[in-house]
Amino acid sequence: MQQNVAITDRDNVLFEAGIKLGALYHQFTGSPVNLKTAGSLEKAIQESISVQPCVEDIKVTINRDMIRSKLNSEYGYCELEGRMLDVRITARFQKAKADVSMAFDTELDYPLMKIERIY
Amino acid sequence: MQQNVAITDRDNVLFEAGIKLGALYHQFTGSPVNLKTAGSLEKAIQESISVQPCVEDIKVTINRDMIRSKLNSEYGYCELEGRMLDVRITARFQKAKADVSMAFDTELDYPLMKIERIY
Amino acid sequence: MQQNVAITDRDNVLFEAGIKLGALYHQFTGSPVNLKTAGSLEKAIQESISVQPCVEDIKVTINRDMIRSKLNSEYGYCELEGRMLDVRITARFQKAKADVSMAFDTELDYPLMKIERIY
Amino acid sequence: MQQNVAITDRDNVLFEAGIKLGALYHQFTGSPVNLKTAGSLEKAIQESISVQPCVEDIKVTINRDMIRSKLNSEYGYCELEGRMLDVRITARFQKAKADVSMAFDTELDYPLMKIERIY
Repeated sequence: MQQNVAITDRDNVLFEAGIKLGALYHQFTGSPVNLKTAGSLEKAIQESISVQPCVEDIKVTINRDMIRSKLNSEYGYCELEGRMLDVRITARFQKAKADVSMAFDTELDYPLMKIERIY
Repeated sequence: MQQNVAITDRDNVLFEAGIKLGALYHQFTGSPVNLKTAGSLEKAIQESISVQPCVEDIKVTINRDMIRSKLNSEYGYCELEGRMLDVRITARFQKAKADVSMAFDTELDYPLMKIERIY
Repeated sequence: MQQNVAITDRDNVLFEAGIKLGALYHQFTGSPVNLKTAGSLEKAIQESISVQPCVEDIKVTINRDMIRSKLNSEYGYCELEGRMLDVRITARFQKAKADVSMAFDTELDYPLMKIERIY
Repeated sequence: MQQNVAITDRDNVLFEAGIKLGALYHQFTGSPVNLKTAGSLEKAIQESISVQPCVEDIKVTINRDMIRSKLNSEYGYCELEGRMLDVRITARFQKAKADVSMAFDTELDYPLMKIERIY
């Protein structure tokens, strides 16, 4: 652990992919949502993050069952929570490419972000 | 200033309308955006805030000229800023109704929130 | 409901107070927090919102018991949720003054924002 | 580009470090701030992100000169912008360790996130 090492495209693509997931999560969770508006929110999140550097592909899905179970009985809406999100991003940095994801991990009770694949 | 006074529907409708504008602003500013994605972001903001209590009508417009002038030359996107937003909300609380707005005030150099009309 | 009416200081103070609560909520919920860091987050929220127009006084308390009950067992932290917040704001607009609050309403299962008093 | 490859600790530490920077940015930019409150905001951001997984060390500095130059002349505050932030994070994932940063790049006119060092 004494030497610093050369930074590769692979390092950078994973760093960039992480930035996107962290950004997405903390920008959009908390947004009011119900079953009728989940579609437009999904689309906006996807398009918003897609404009950032290194994003080659992104797919955002909001879990409707979780929305349904969280709807406030008085007001008929809830907030977007991290656990409702399923996100798949393909990032590219020059010659390196990686797939990363965010998905709710029921065992950890946590919206887990993960490296899925490095090309 | 010693007596407290009865709270009316009119008081509540303005309070609720204010909540919505503050929420909208601090939930969605900072979102990455460019000219191609401004439409989906507008729609998502509008629908998201519309699910909250007391919102009878809402119209959100993002100023394309301001986006254009803020696009980063290297990366081709910018962030949604308060000054880019034009928002019109009609709120209702029982018998009271009000129109409020947020729009960039060039003189104050500030995204000003304002009561437009009380019915 | 046909006539529009003159807008008073009282109308404005409630509108402004609402803006602050909506802003606070959607700016800071989602922040990672645990029992050791709740104090600095409380203080920052309080001071941040205090710089906005019309805020005469503000007190923010984060419910430690709720944090404790939400701590992820693997990672030892949780996110700030609206229901963890107790907020008291005194707002002033020229001659009008009002106290407003946000507190978790167990019956509604909702972080309720309310006008407490108009002076 | 056909084979996927084994994911290393080094890959994970950079992914995790990226997540933290993206989260920090999109959670806290937009917060109202002035010269008197910058200190408590710095401290809260630092402590908040420090509770997340893999953060070994974090230092957050908000540029006072930029705050000063952005203060609204009418209201005496501004919003925290990404370009005001200088952030240094040391992340660890098992045997891998890395330093990453966010700092305003004047040439790119952009708050640049960067891998500083991999141990």
